[in-house]
Amino acid sequence: MFDFKYFTPTKVIFGKNTESKVAELVKEFGGTKLLIHYGGGSVVRSGLLKRVTDCLDAAGIGYVTLGGAVPNPHLGLVYEGIELCKKENVDFLLAVGGGSAIDSAKAIGYGLANEGDVWDFYDYKRQAKGCLPLGVILTLAATGSEMSDSSVITKEEGLVKRGYSSDYARPKFAIMNPELTMTLPDYQTACGCTDIMMHTMERYFTNGGNMEITDALAEGLLRTVKKNALTLCKNPKDYDARAEVMWAGSLAHNGLTGCGNDGGDWMTHKLEHELGGLYDVAHGAGLAAIWGTWARYVYKNCLPRFVKFALNVMEVENKGSDEEIALAGIEAMEDFYRSINMPTNLRELGVEPTEDELKLMAHKCAVGVGGQMGSARVLREEDMLNIYRASM
Amino acid sequence: MFDFKYFTPTKVIFGKNTESKVAELVKEFGGTKLLIHYGGGSVVRSGLLKRVTDCLDAAGIGYVTLGGAVPNPHLGLVYEGIELCKKENVDFLLAVGGGSAIDSAKAIGYGLANEGDVWDFYDYKRQAKGCLPLGVILTLAATGSEMSDSSVITKEEGLVKRGYSSDYARPKFAIMNPELTMTLPDYQTACGCTDIMMHTMERYFTNGGNMEITDALAEGLLRTVKKNALTLCKNPKDYDARAEVMWAGSLAHNGLTGCGNDGGDWMTHKLEHELGGLYDVAHGAGLAAIWGTWARYVYKNCLPRFVKFALNVMEVENKGSDEEIALAGIEAMEDFYRSINMPTNLRELGVEPTEDELKLMAHKCAVGVGGQMGSARVLREEDMLNIYRASM
Repeated sequence: MFDFKYFTPTKVIFGKNTESKVAELVKEFGGTKLLIHYGGGSVVRSGLLKRVTDCLDAAGIGYVTLGGAVPNPHLGLVYEGIELCKKENVDFLLAVGGGSAIDSAKAIGYGLANEGDVWDFYDYKRQAKGCLPLGVILTLAATGSEMSDSSVITKEEGLVKRGYSSDYARPKFAIMNPELTMTLPDYQTACGCTDIMMHTMERYFTNGGNMEITDALAEGLLRTVKKNALTLCKNPKDYDARAEVMWAGSLAHNGLTGCGNDGGDWMTHKLEHELGGLYDVAHGAGLAAIWGTWARYVYKNCLPRFVKFALNVMEVENKGSDEEIALAGIEAMEDFYRSINMPTNLRELGVEPTEDELKLMAHKCAVGVGGQMGSARVLREEDMLNIYRASM
Repeated sequence: MFDFKYFTPTKVIFGKNTESKVAELVKEFGGTKLLIHYGGGSVVRSGLLKRVTDCLDAAGIGYVTLGGAVPNPHLGLVYEGIELCKKENVDFLLAVGGGSAIDSAKAIGYGLANEGDVWDFYDYKRQAKGCLPLGVILTLAATGSEMSDSSVITKEEGLVKRGYSSDYARPKFAIMNPELTMTLPDYQTACGCTDIMMHTMERYFTNGGNMEITDALAEGLLRTVKKNALTLCKNPKDYDARAEVMWAGSLAHNGLTGCGNDGGDWMTHKLEHELGGLYDVAHGAGLAAIWGTWARYVYKNCLPRFVKFALNVMEVENKGSDEEIALAGIEAMEDFYRSINMPTNLRELGVEPTEDELKLMAHKCAVGVGGQMGSARVLREEDMLNIYRASM
């Protein structure tokens, strides 16, 4: 196993009506003037934003608001947020929403705590030296950004989607009320469950440094999300299932499921990022559409892990050769995706790239990862193109 | 399930030679003058203390040292540490050792950050309002104090052993090098594994608010420790097994394995605390000596959990009635304790209390928990006496 660092300082307040604690949490972490950053109008229509501002008003905490964070959040809005915060002397960021609002807020936080263009960090040009403190009220279980060090921003010019990670951006607190996720469209719920599982699976399919306890936690998390995703297909208002998925979303991406390994594979994410950048598809659906093809392309290079996954997560029968068991596990995972109405190829995802577009995505992906990447199997531009083609 | 808070801010640096990072970590958290607090002479004899002070000297960080923290650490040394720190203007505590040194340092930290007698907190008289910042270099995988909010101190007068918990005392960083645990006596290693499993089991055997994901993580953790405890019986120098157990020790008591439940049962710990106070037995061994009797006394009141434990942790055959499966799980756990040379009753633990001593322990235990306690089954003084008697 490898040495590792584990750092998850985010204070999680989990349960019903926990958003009512926002003012005391903001005070605890020293916020006096907030930017409340959110996405679409759902937090307005649901009354959540009003409940939050009422709570802040009662506590005498000032704030300005900025909506409009879209899925695959845009750099333009980040710049807008930075300017607004400077003008209003904001000293604390409050993201109300899912990964888009949180990631956008993290980028705004980097912009405020560092000189120069914030895109430099996402463009691998330099490292951030800080981030304005950030709190979260989570309304969507998916990206795990509420406890993670990572954020993903899309630059509109050229539709370049890039991630940047540093401990500075880990939220100070995360308010997690599963009830806030109950009104999500079924498609978004399923996308979220897929994203959660993929955060763990990216760390699971590796060729280096695995720990037994990390595997046991990862497998338990994956079985839990699989089961509760199916429950939510039938009964989207099941509080317990919402809670299981919501908490799993944080644990899947705060570092816990990667302790001791080599950092993970992450190629499914990188391949999907190009899809997301070019077609603006939902991130979770894009991952589901790519994963099966990726898995078949790499499994022979990471066979023991695919066998373990098949037996301990997908619970396939322990029968036949290792290759047969591994393939049965991949098929079972694709069957699961279909059972929660997720796509398992690009056509089902609703995109039909031309050969030139496939080549463009493979090229951008290869450039984005610095030439080659992957732990289950190292992939180069040619491999990326092969996977994109086979996933049509 | 219940609402919960989850807060584990400790920065964990895990792996070989990580103690060499102590100076940069102390600086990161603002320490300029340290108390290095440790237990017996083993950290001196092993050269660890010298390596730590060399590292601090090179970085120009001042320090004073205080050894002598014993298992079931004493209040007297806590008072001594507080006085020393005041005299030397210490602003950061560094515990080098296991739970005894860490718990003792936490109590010193409370004493420095609060007016009045530090024992008040352990005596349930008032709540702490802060704690001097604390870092840890861990040399023993057991109590989980390196990430936990808890500490246990024994007042010499009357041998009163009490715990106090608050987030203020969660260490700022924990340096965890599994190699530092390789020279432990086998008995201490086994005691540590028992303590780690019991921290999770105390949270597992409850009658309220369980989450599927918490159960899955707890069961995975327990299976991992069970397997690696057996490995360490055969090969105490197995690095990977040491690492699995060490990381499990932190996760077993940082809150992760209790999210969503009612707080846990904890009566095995409370019953053992009286044994530890009166006879100064090793904490892990005391827990093993009590658990089986406790389990047989309460299992009918918490049957579904004992069945789940039997099947998913002890992996007994799914055959017979629920009661039979539950009892088979308890027996399997006792067999496991014996296989790592842990006692399963008081005689094997090496203590033979008189009837008066049993009554005294039951009385002190009942007073200590405020009359009654337990989630698997609520126990009163009479029940505690029954369990002590049956565990002879």
